[in-house]
Amino acid sequence: MKILAISGSLRAASINSALLRTIVRLAPDEIELFQGLGELPLFNPDRESNIPATVNDFRRLVAAADAILIASPEYAHGVTGSIKNALDWLVSYEPFAYKAVAVLNASSRAQHADAALREILKTMAANVVESASVTIPLLGAGLDENGMVQTLSIVEAIRKMLSSLHEAVAVQRPSQSPSFPVPTQCLPTS
Amino acid sequence: MKILAISGSLRAASINSALLRTIVRLAPDEIELFQGLGELPLFNPDRESNIPATVNDFRRLVAAADAILIASPEYAHGVTGSIKNALDWLVSYEPFAYKAVAVLNASSRAQHADAALREILKTMAANVVESASVTIPLLGAGLDENGMVQTLSIVEAIRKMLSSLHEAVAVQRPSQSPSFPVPTQCLPTS
Repeated sequence: MKILAISGSLRAASINSALLRTIVRLAPDEIELFQGLGELPLFNPDRESNIPATVNDFRRLVAAADAILIASPEYAHGVTGSIKNALDWLVSYEPFAYKAVAVLNASSRAQHADAALREILKTMAANVVESASVTIPLLGAGLDENGMVQTLSIVEAIRKMLSSLHEAVAVQRPSQSPSFPVPTQCLPTS
Repeated sequence: MKILAISGSLRAASINSALLRTIVRLAPDEIELFQGLGELPLFNPDRESNIPATVNDFRRLVAAADAILIASPEYAHGVTGSIKNALDWLVSYEPFAYKAVAVLNASSRAQHADAALREILKTMAANVVESASVTIPLLGAGLDENGMVQTLSIVEAIRKMLSSLHEAVAVQRPSQSPSFPVPTQCLPTS
């Protein structure tokens, strides 16, 4: 299985990015950490006919992945502008529809952004894998990646999450993806 | 009164941008349309100590305004990445707190983004002026700016909205702004 992991924070010390790096360490052969979030231009529907190179690179990684793993902080009770901007570039991108997606939450108090992110992904016709979309409370735990890989409860939560994601992808594969286009509620209002 | 109008769409034919241009036409002396949304870099908390020039320009316009007017589309049941990115740069910017803000909605079916935007703004300690935060249903109406300024119901809705915003700013002024810092729920989770 190929998984693309996307952190919604550009902060170097982000715990969401650290969580994803920890997951990569535990399953290096199947997970790739997306490094280009900060290089994506702001989404402009007028550019759909002339897609920027960084967006094309991002889309190709998405298309090639069996599943997407998102960990993103909450800013002012909302998703980060950076993760929403990346998702805006995928709204009209056919290979994203019906893709298995797990939404990780690194803070049990970040409920607004977590709910908003799931609603957005479902509207984009993603297959949000609930059993793999878990809260791993790290905010304030004072752990870096080395601390996380040495903490049994975190390692177990990650292994269980990955196992759920594997199952969801295995179930989805035989039936293939439903057809495009995505539902009309997914279309932008301008 | 000085009002800064911000469209959350970068699309040239955006009805939200057209609505704001129409409002500028009706009150050109007091409203300035923000032109720099697409030039703001993606928010990175690590850059707070070395703020990019375009962000500084944006912040200065915000600080100088008595009120902010936002009109932004809904993308996949969420706010646009572009408007959230602009707001992310204001979360820790003191002059934004307690600023009067009106949220315009150009589509009666864009309920998710409208609710999310209000929640985000309130969490940022903005003074969301409910009486001025109205839906002006333009999606599918086929009107450009010329059509809008010639449509009595739209012109009246805009004048009423501006009047409510005036009142809110007038009431707010005598008591001055409450003190910083903003509430802790406003702080990012990383």
